[in-house]
Amino acid sequence: MGLYTDLACEAREMNPSIEGVTEETENFTDISITRIRISGEAAARKLEKSIGTYITIDAPQLASRPLDLFSNVSGRLSQELKKLMANIPQNAQILVVGLGNRSITPDSLGPKVAERVFVTRHVKQHMPEAFDYPLASVASAAPGVLGSTGIETFEVVRGIVERISPDLIIAVDSLASRRAARISTTIQLSDTGISPGSGVGNLRAGLNRESLGIPVIAIGVPLVVHAATITQDTISMMADETGLHSDEEKLKELAEKVINEKLGAMIVTPKDIDTIVKDMSGIIADGINTALYGEHYEDVRMLIA
Amino acid sequence: MGLYTDLACEAREMNPSIEGVTEETENFTDISITRIRISGEAAARKLEKSIGTYITIDAPQLASRPLDLFSNVSGRLSQELKKLMANIPQNAQILVVGLGNRSITPDSLGPKVAERVFVTRHVKQHMPEAFDYPLASVASAAPGVLGSTGIETFEVVRGIVERISPDLIIAVDSLASRRAARISTTIQLSDTGISPGSGVGNLRAGLNRESLGIPVIAIGVPLVVHAATITQDTISMMADETGLHSDEEKLKELAEKVINEKLGAMIVTPKDIDTIVKDMSGIIADGINTALYGEHYEDVRMLIA
Amino acid sequence: MGLYTDLACEAREMNPSIEGVTEETENFTDISITRIRISGEAAARKLEKSIGTYITIDAPQLASRPLDLFSNVSGRLSQELKKLMANIPQNAQILVVGLGNRSITPDSLGPKVAERVFVTRHVKQHMPEAFDYPLASVASAAPGVLGSTGIETFEVVRGIVERISPDLIIAVDSLASRRAARISTTIQLSDTGISPGSGVGNLRAGLNRESLGIPVIAIGVPLVVHAATITQDTISMMADETGLHSDEEKLKELAEKVINEKLGAMIVTPKDIDTIVKDMSGIIADGINTALYGEHYEDVRMLIA
Amino acid sequence: MGLYTDLACEAREMNPSIEGVTEETENFTDISITRIRISGEAAARKLEKSIGTYITIDAPQLASRPLDLFSNVSGRLSQELKKLMANIPQNAQILVVGLGNRSITPDSLGPKVAERVFVTRHVKQHMPEAFDYPLASVASAAPGVLGSTGIETFEVVRGIVERISPDLIIAVDSLASRRAARISTTIQLSDTGISPGSGVGNLRAGLNRESLGIPVIAIGVPLVVHAATITQDTISMMADETGLHSDEEKLKELAEKVINEKLGAMIVTPKDIDTIVKDMSGIIADGINTALYGEHYEDVRMLIA
Repeated sequence: MGLYTDLACEAREMNPSIEGVTEETENFTDISITRIRISGEAAARKLEKSIGTYITIDAPQLASRPLDLFSNVSGRLSQELKKLMANIPQNAQILVVGLGNRSITPDSLGPKVAERVFVTRHVKQHMPEAFDYPLASVASAAPGVLGSTGIETFEVVRGIVERISPDLIIAVDSLASRRAARISTTIQLSDTGISPGSGVGNLRAGLNRESLGIPVIAIGVPLVVHAATITQDTISMMADETGLHSDEEKLKELAEKVINEKLGAMIVTPKDIDTIVKDMSGIIADGINTALYGEHYEDVRMLIA
Repeated sequence: MGLYTDLACEAREMNPSIEGVTEETENFTDISITRIRISGEAAARKLEKSIGTYITIDAPQLASRPLDLFSNVSGRLSQELKKLMANIPQNAQILVVGLGNRSITPDSLGPKVAERVFVTRHVKQHMPEAFDYPLASVASAAPGVLGSTGIETFEVVRGIVERISPDLIIAVDSLASRRAARISTTIQLSDTGISPGSGVGNLRAGLNRESLGIPVIAIGVPLVVHAATITQDTISMMADETGLHSDEEKLKELAEKVINEKLGAMIVTPKDIDTIVKDMSGIIADGINTALYGEHYEDVRMLIA
Repeated sequence: MGLYTDLACEAREMNPSIEGVTEETENFTDISITRIRISGEAAARKLEKSIGTYITIDAPQLASRPLDLFSNVSGRLSQELKKLMANIPQNAQILVVGLGNRSITPDSLGPKVAERVFVTRHVKQHMPEAFDYPLASVASAAPGVLGSTGIETFEVVRGIVERISPDLIIAVDSLASRRAARISTTIQLSDTGISPGSGVGNLRAGLNRESLGIPVIAIGVPLVVHAATITQDTISMMADETGLHSDEEKLKELAEKVINEKLGAMIVTPKDIDTIVKDMSGIIADGINTALYGEHYEDVRMLIA
Repeated sequence: MGLYTDLACEAREMNPSIEGVTEETENFTDISITRIRISGEAAARKLEKSIGTYITIDAPQLASRPLDLFSNVSGRLSQELKKLMANIPQNAQILVVGLGNRSITPDSLGPKVAERVFVTRHVKQHMPEAFDYPLASVASAAPGVLGSTGIETFEVVRGIVERISPDLIIAVDSLASRRAARISTTIQLSDTGISPGSGVGNLRAGLNRESLGIPVIAIGVPLVVHAATITQDTISMMADETGLHSDEEKLKELAEKVINEKLGAMIVTPKDIDTIVKDMSGIIADGINTALYGEHYEDVRMLIA
């Protein structure tokens, strides 16, 4: 049984006492930020995550959608993203990649963010005089998913990378979490890129420095819980209460039986997922735009609107 | 713990041996039709359903979306609907009501069907010469849900009924099922109207002959499974296997604990729910159009397109 | 040839020197507000508008979508709306009606605003203790259009009015303008309600104090230009330049010929109408929410979100 | 003043008597097919079209949306496409490219078709045993537009072409026509690919054999009329009637004046453009699917659905 989570912090919770992992948490009003560093191979394997840094921004109050928390979270995201981009020059070429399938609501976060990020590459190329200060040259792409295009996401991204040679990729994706309460209240950033098999749509090939030759920062939001998770959790809580832990094999069999008979590939999602995806894509696009353009944000917005 | 199902056939499966219920099933290629009649008060209470007839059209192959099955199912729906309308004259005034919240995908079936039903009321009123044969005068409405409008669905429907005095209402709604496999493969018709508290959006007041003074035929498709159902089912399978049934109280407590901690008001839905709702709304609208207009279907379509 | 405009200010421009009309303009940074009062029957007939007050908020810079202008315009709208509501008590029952067809983009402004207005009627009814201060009881409805529902918009609104007895209606609609430049840069408010035949969808019966028995405030945004307008304007400019004015009859014939041969019922609209409708519905919903809830805006938002 | 048309048949109508162009028309019930061959450089320059073959499928009745005409037109399109693909082997690799901006309704035809074309490339690659007969390996892409992505469409397409090496591209795009009546009733196919500057979104670099090294078949549907066209047409009709043709220069000035003052970059489009784009994308996707898969159409549909 897999971990069914794309969040490093959840993988860590399920494996609290392994070596090769450090964790620290910073608390702000209504927001907490946890930084997990996975440094050893063994820890990476156990947590089913690549070696690197994972930053989780948690804001449980987001569920009730207060407007000022939206901009606070977006501001924190911007700051964390800037830290991850510390080595990237101010006028770098950046490609924002929106992963996922836009016609499946909980999987459409990436394409929606790609649409809302301010792109400047064409303006800088065709009207270089428009900006007389160092400014990022930003492009975006929403490559679609294998099942809809017949092409691996990796192939489309690599094709674009080879044509436009960006210095950095920021890849945005929907994630799977183990806990319904995390949906829409958590953002994960990471300097590891996207691993094969992660995200809601399950990439076959990863998007990372190894495969693409440039750094890839990943930003994700948990938007589904695999239904199988609920079965697993129910069974393990029941086992705790009834002292059935002795027979682990039997419990696994049971879980698989329920999952196969009742669930298929169902996902668990809140009823108002359309609104949630719209809100979160705004928060993330805004965080990216602020990190990339800083004091020139408003100039850029006016020029490209 | 409630039954968490809007389907009479599932309520019946969970209470197989009570009095006051009859059931018969007819099998066709790829389609089976089950007719359940609830005649006694006690049965109605136990099944949490009103007294009346419930027809379930099952077509498990619909999940793989073969085009000819679409039209077969739509044809069967049309026939069953015509039987329920046996006493309605050919030129009756009919109001199709699409229940649910159009901005929540699994709850948008009703509004989508309302949009796709051919309306003729205004044509018959303003160009009576357009049709020189008896023909239904059809109108539609999508009243929205209490949380979005601040008005009980019942009040909006009653307001319209008082203004246009229809002879019959056909109300279409998304339903909750206990089994993921039923999503998109089952249609339920009933002559009982819509009970309070049923449907995905949970009406407070029912839409039925008692409340509206005219017959109400309900058509629904299961599009969500309450996440709580999965927990219940997992626990009861586990209890079966482990012989824990003796302590029913403890099992209930456990289920509630999992549901509260992990799930909140989550729903379980397939990833491709957008496509499913689009397909099913087409099947149902077509079934209604065929039942209402019969041989004049194409005439009506051309005139109003 | 009709005026092809729903804007009192344009009708006025085309008939500058008639009696029974007063006009005053107030200028602010980036925004000007024009108030036209039509007091005489003859003027009303000539301008094809009902007797009453028409307020036009013009902000030509809105076309380039600067965020702070959005909130300034929304603030001005709120103030003007409050003036029109001077006699309405603070805890009045208000029904916001979103007119138009939500599946035709330039006609979907009304339904979109209806969706974004905060509704409190059900909360005040079922949890009267939630607000311990006088507060408007707000409901909303999007009745659809005759061609889609088979029911006159007026009938649906009247049905709802009879059930819930509001003190005031605020009706929101897309308008037709004579000038492309006005699209998305103008908002018209009026205390006259909606006249028959106005709006993009052309109501048959008006929504006003005469027909509904309660005051109706109308808010509209020009979102289309009838293609026929362009032909008329081209011909009249050409006639000006070439001194052909003598033969008015012939010019009219010509205009009708071009319109019939080339245009049918085409509309002229900007390419990015989807974005414009989204932006304008946000501005208007926000203006209404601020006018209705004032200092309690944030409380209401949190409670109902 | 440009021709403002992407249709070879309209460019031809405006230049009826030039050399280097042949034209033939075939008539069927409710459908006519015109084949224009541009063979000379001078004709190509005059018509503002590349040398090659242009096939126009006209079905004026499509405007009233009769279902059987939909499938007839789709069948004709399939046959014409197969003729253009005569030299392409049955198991070729084909990339369907949906050009245009999916968030602007009249420009979203291409992306919608790309979504509805059956893709098999991934199945043939990962499950080669699924098809035991020669079958096209089809992939799709919707590269977006320069203004949204910051990347020339050509660069994205070329990047993908370099990674997956297709044998043929089928590029689908929205077109501009001179006549409102053509919207939704005409399909143009061509073996010339897409020229720079054509289509609603105006490509800067062409997609054709010269730029991509492989044949490119273009399929387009007129979905907008530039508003400037209406002005031009009005003026030229007026000039005809009034005998003002002598002063051509003055007429041009006039046209430009009207366009600048009144229209900006407005487009003329039918009110129900959303429905039209949905219908036409279905017709075109179906025509492509039938041309590519022939007798295996249903097999492919079931496997990939």
